[in-house]
Amino acid sequence: MKLGKRTIKLNNPPNILGYATVVGEKEEQGPLSGKFDEVFKGDANGEDSFEQEESKMQERAANLAISKSGCKLEQINMAFAGDLLNQCIGSNYSMRSLGIPFCGIYGACSNMSLSMILAALMINADYADFTLAMTSSHFCAAERQFRFPLEYGGQRTPTSQWTATASGAVVIGYGEDDSIRLTKICLGKIVDANVSDINNMGAAMAPAAADTITAFFKDTKTSADDYDLILTGDLGEVGSTLLCKLMESEGFPIKGKHSDCGILLFDKESQDVHAGGSGCGCSAAVLCSDIFPKISKGELKKVLFIATGALMSTVSTEQGESIPSIAQLVLLEGK
Amino acid sequence: MKLGKRTIKLNNPPNILGYATVVGEKEEQGPLSGKFDEVFKGDANGEDSFEQEESKMQERAANLAISKSGCKLEQINMAFAGDLLNQCIGSNYSMRSLGIPFCGIYGACSNMSLSMILAALMINADYADFTLAMTSSHFCAAERQFRFPLEYGGQRTPTSQWTATASGAVVIGYGEDDSIRLTKICLGKIVDANVSDINNMGAAMAPAAADTITAFFKDTKTSADDYDLILTGDLGEVGSTLLCKLMESEGFPIKGKHSDCGILLFDKESQDVHAGGSGCGCSAAVLCSDIFPKISKGELKKVLFIATGALMSTVSTEQGESIPSIAQLVLLEGK
Repeated sequence: MKLGKRTIKLNNPPNILGYATVVGEKEEQGPLSGKFDEVFKGDANGEDSFEQEESKMQERAANLAISKSGCKLEQINMAFAGDLLNQCIGSNYSMRSLGIPFCGIYGACSNMSLSMILAALMINADYADFTLAMTSSHFCAAERQFRFPLEYGGQRTPTSQWTATASGAVVIGYGEDDSIRLTKICLGKIVDANVSDINNMGAAMAPAAADTITAFFKDTKTSADDYDLILTGDLGEVGSTLLCKLMESEGFPIKGKHSDCGILLFDKESQDVHAGGSGCGCSAAVLCSDIFPKISKGELKKVLFIATGALMSTVSTEQGESIPSIAQLVLLEGK
Repeated sequence: MKLGKRTIKLNNPPNILGYATVVGEKEEQGPLSGKFDEVFKGDANGEDSFEQEESKMQERAANLAISKSGCKLEQINMAFAGDLLNQCIGSNYSMRSLGIPFCGIYGACSNMSLSMILAALMINADYADFTLAMTSSHFCAAERQFRFPLEYGGQRTPTSQWTATASGAVVIGYGEDDSIRLTKICLGKIVDANVSDINNMGAAMAPAAADTITAFFKDTKTSADDYDLILTGDLGEVGSTLLCKLMESEGFPIKGKHSDCGILLFDKESQDVHAGGSGCGCSAAVLCSDIFPKISKGELKKVLFIATGALMSTVSTEQGESIPSIAQLVLLEGK
């Protein structure tokens, strides 16, 4: 049901039936240590390349999530997945092995919520019995694609973020476990705040997050007081500070309720990640390791999850373009 | 309504309310000359780069389609768009200027039908009043990204296809003009026939097309006899021949009913395109210039449109991977 300008209320809220996350060693050494389903070792976990490892992480996360959901692979009617690699090869090769009817998405680091939005809309409309939403990122694969050859050892700026090596997968449908429901969604618009520094993506994405959260509050006539947690992914420290200021000026302060997956995944002091974590896998990993269990146990009841994406490419950056950004919102409710 | 294993029947079939296509000069010189809404001149039409021209083509096609639909820009609730450029910058920058709530997709050259599938499902479920489906490709931008620098003048093989410089946009919703309805869809699975020659994408994609068309025929208990046209995009000559053979061996011959957008867009003899056209814009341009008007006028009544995508990247190719492919199907019906 359409609610206001951009929000959709899911009349028959689908459930999160299973979820899993597979991460790299650095992620396992962070504050969420012990909460991940599986840890891949080394930079390629025995695969021939970083890109192949990223695909394998997705494949493993999907199989774990499906197994935990109690579904069989062949019961999943549709999958929605995307990643940061050129032509989304992380997802295209993982989906080749899974063999589920597939819709490829691209929203950069907004992929986790974007894939969940589409997967939930399909269930609510009875187009599918079970759907899969999934994404991933890989530090080494992203670094050499977007920045420098790894061997170069480039200096990182204080505002830069660290791409997580991680994949998260979620199975959505109706089932016995209704401890996490997807009740509302709000699609993002592209917002470009004229930031062109690709080492400051938090600043580029914060205005997009503010735009979507404000639209959702207006559509639903709610404010931060109505939610237990407003979780963005991945603005990092710079973007999070900016977002809180922007929301304050919009008349919808969120400071006490806001947290960010880029800040939660790594320890800033000991892990040398500068402004925080980033990459599609960052918000996926935090959601699937820490947030879903807390909702399921009743520790959190209403969580706004807003994954944010910076939609530039190296070509657009070299051509002097600023960074178009987007934020996709889902409301998760427990009991 | 779910129909068989992979097909969805749209209980309230949405209408194609407006459509438009913008192409380059070579496309205008082909067999469909005079049927396009607008022709961009030169390789960049006055823009600073090929990539920016591609974005502008999308923007122009979207505005024309919206204007022809009778809608206002602000009435469009959701847009689905993607392209071939790394990180889909063709779509991300066009959507920045359009400001419509946006879902980025990636299905390579299957983007036109993939975006129409999602846009139609949203209307049928009453999640949106009007949706936009759009894609594009650009010969110069694609050539230098996927193959060689343009200045190099690389030799092309006989099986290679020519990326169309074109964009197509479609507005979907309910309106007075119900001369074209979207009645059924069938999502593709990734099929990999172990083809690794990136100059023979027709051969890589034909098995994916055969897989989706066969699944649809089985789900709907129909055959080629039930349709006026089975239009793939873009298998070219090599892929089309293979598809007809594969369908014959599946027990669902389509030869007399099949045509391919890659063959229809260019003149093989005079335009030096070898096995035919390709690129997301190729099927978009043929659909929006030639096929929609024929359905609208009653010249074609039931058309299966199956856009096909080759989902590799230059990195996966260099790493020796074969080409994963997909085909997304929509059934278009006239009166």
